[in-house]
Amino acid sequence: MASSSMKPMRSQVEEYIVSLQYQIVSAFETLDPAAPPFKRDSWVRPQGGTGQSCVFACATDDVSVAQQTVLEKAGVNISIVHGILPPAAIKQMRADHSAMPLPDRPEGLPFFAAGISLVIHPRNPNAPTVHANYRYFEITEPVEAGSDKGTSEPKVLAWWFGGGCDLTPSYLFEEDAIHFHSTLKKACDKYGPELYPSFKKWCDEYFYIPHRNETRGVGGIFFDDLNLGPHARLSSPNSPDAARRPTSPAEIFAFVQELGNSFVPSYLPILTSRHFLPYTPLQRRWQLIRRGRYVEFNLVYDRGTKFGLMTPGARIESILMSLPETARWEYMCELGEEGTEEGKLIEVLKKPREWV
Amino acid sequence: MASSSMKPMRSQVEEYIVSLQYQIVSAFETLDPAAPPFKRDSWVRPQGGTGQSCVFACATDDVSVAQQTVLEKAGVNISIVHGILPPAAIKQMRADHSAMPLPDRPEGLPFFAAGISLVIHPRNPNAPTVHANYRYFEITEPVEAGSDKGTSEPKVLAWWFGGGCDLTPSYLFEEDAIHFHSTLKKACDKYGPELYPSFKKWCDEYFYIPHRNETRGVGGIFFDDLNLGPHARLSSPNSPDAARRPTSPAEIFAFVQELGNSFVPSYLPILTSRHFLPYTPLQRRWQLIRRGRYVEFNLVYDRGTKFGLMTPGARIESILMSLPETARWEYMCELGEEGTEEGKLIEVLKKPREWV
Repeated sequence: MASSSMKPMRSQVEEYIVSLQYQIVSAFETLDPAAPPFKRDSWVRPQGGTGQSCVFACATDDVSVAQQTVLEKAGVNISIVHGILPPAAIKQMRADHSAMPLPDRPEGLPFFAAGISLVIHPRNPNAPTVHANYRYFEITEPVEAGSDKGTSEPKVLAWWFGGGCDLTPSYLFEEDAIHFHSTLKKACDKYGPELYPSFKKWCDEYFYIPHRNETRGVGGIFFDDLNLGPHARLSSPNSPDAARRPTSPAEIFAFVQELGNSFVPSYLPILTSRHFLPYTPLQRRWQLIRRGRYVEFNLVYDRGTKFGLMTPGARIESILMSLPETARWEYMCELGEEGTEEGKLIEVLKKPREWV
Repeated sequence: MASSSMKPMRSQVEEYIVSLQYQIVSAFETLDPAAPPFKRDSWVRPQGGTGQSCVFACATDDVSVAQQTVLEKAGVNISIVHGILPPAAIKQMRADHSAMPLPDRPEGLPFFAAGISLVIHPRNPNAPTVHANYRYFEITEPVEAGSDKGTSEPKVLAWWFGGGCDLTPSYLFEEDAIHFHSTLKKACDKYGPELYPSFKKWCDEYFYIPHRNETRGVGGIFFDDLNLGPHARLSSPNSPDAARRPTSPAEIFAFVQELGNSFVPSYLPILTSRHFLPYTPLQRRWQLIRRGRYVEFNLVYDRGTKFGLMTPGARIESILMSLPETARWEYMCELGEEGTEEGKLIEVLKKPREWV
């Protein structure tokens, strides 16, 4: 699919996520110049494609001594991969992606996927964890061997964008949740009034831990399968009020860029105003318990993590980069009672709120 | 199913697990008299049944200060539950349990399940984590309303025992693995020579983390679906050499009791000789990383945990009691290299060994 710039969308997306990764990592490094820099690891996928993981960690043997960095563990990962999707995988993906062709070719179909995925776990219990992910997926016509098609771009049979961004505090600062949601809403609203309400609701539904009857955090936005066709959660692309959602590939990509670019302004001011607050041992303990819930969501429910763990040849270190450095599980933990600061958080996790 | 004592098996199993729980908890409390006692929590399942969780923990707000107890977190749980198994659940369980009747009654079938489940995480990195679980499952004929059958025992349509016991060290002491396996083998061998080899292999297969290409620990035994019928991993019950496996319900129950009774002798001598060894901060760090793997297995693969998390009304605190107090995830952790003490463990996790 060529956008107005005539460059194939896959190249545009690739360029964009490379620059977004650089911009985000630089922002965190600038905030805490005394901390060690992110570790950059480029990798090659033997079956096709490349990636770069940028990871922050302060490995130390004495894990009981608290370090002084703003971040405790963070990863900002990009991957640009391609290969052949077998008919079984096409069939499975059709359930969530209406644009996906029928799985009627025994040899499968070529795919291309490019995305950025990040998780930031700050050290201070007053500073929230944040996660974001934006990705582009494409299915193309097989290129026949020996044809001169090899030199031109393959025909795109289906494509979509997906992604989202959500905030997971250990302690609730209402103004932080409002700032985060407002920034995302502003980015969404430029491309249609129905995007934020629809994707905010989707986020609350997706980041939900059934066995705890809690959401993972205070939400944000989540979307998938965004293209020009009909969408289960958006108005019809042929509806008279066409301005309610992006209506061209270029506009959808511009929308995703708007969201990607809003990551730093949505989160950095929150981190800046929380990372230096004093905290007690009890607050640290509560933070580690909340990180245990983060692990529970990611390992038991998160579709991306589950898909990654089941994929032969997947880079496990990049998939599990999202897990916190430390997590804690207590039997019948007494923290989180009504009327406490911890309980204030639990209340909004049990009953998601409209923040803007 | 009545055993030779004429008391129904379900009552015999219930009595046994209650006394085994008491015996095991007492053994740990005696080993460390200065530590707080296990916390006993009795609970009632609204849909039918009861249980008792005995949990050891030293909750403290300052999680960075190491406590001085032998155990860090431990749970010894029993549950005796009953209810109605819907046809869908019967159908699913038939895949693993050949004795299960056809799911041809729309009202489902009554079940009874009694079991003991324990996980012990000691504080010292030289002392291994241990897990054991023994359970009895029964499906009975529905008792018709108004019939005088209510006073007699319902007819048993299917029954089986399952369970196992496995050891998860952070550092390999070969003599500990040998002692643990020898004790289990001795218990098994009294009831037939094929039990230990078959159940040892099953354990290595079950406690395997595919995405890490590692077993969870150095194994032990694992079995399921043990009754008088044909068994996928044992010789035919009608084979000429009938002494190769237990051949009556009483004998199977005696075998399971032998295993349950061997828990303390299999594990306590190991704990006793390791819990006081000096250790370095690096060893503590490695232990927490290994606990991260324990969490990965339990949340991603363990059938019991997954089943529990999906069961409406299940007691989440008892299910997740198995998780360690603290776990750690590092990106591209450098520990575990060949030639180090950490690497010695990894070697046997990648290539399970015959210990006896």
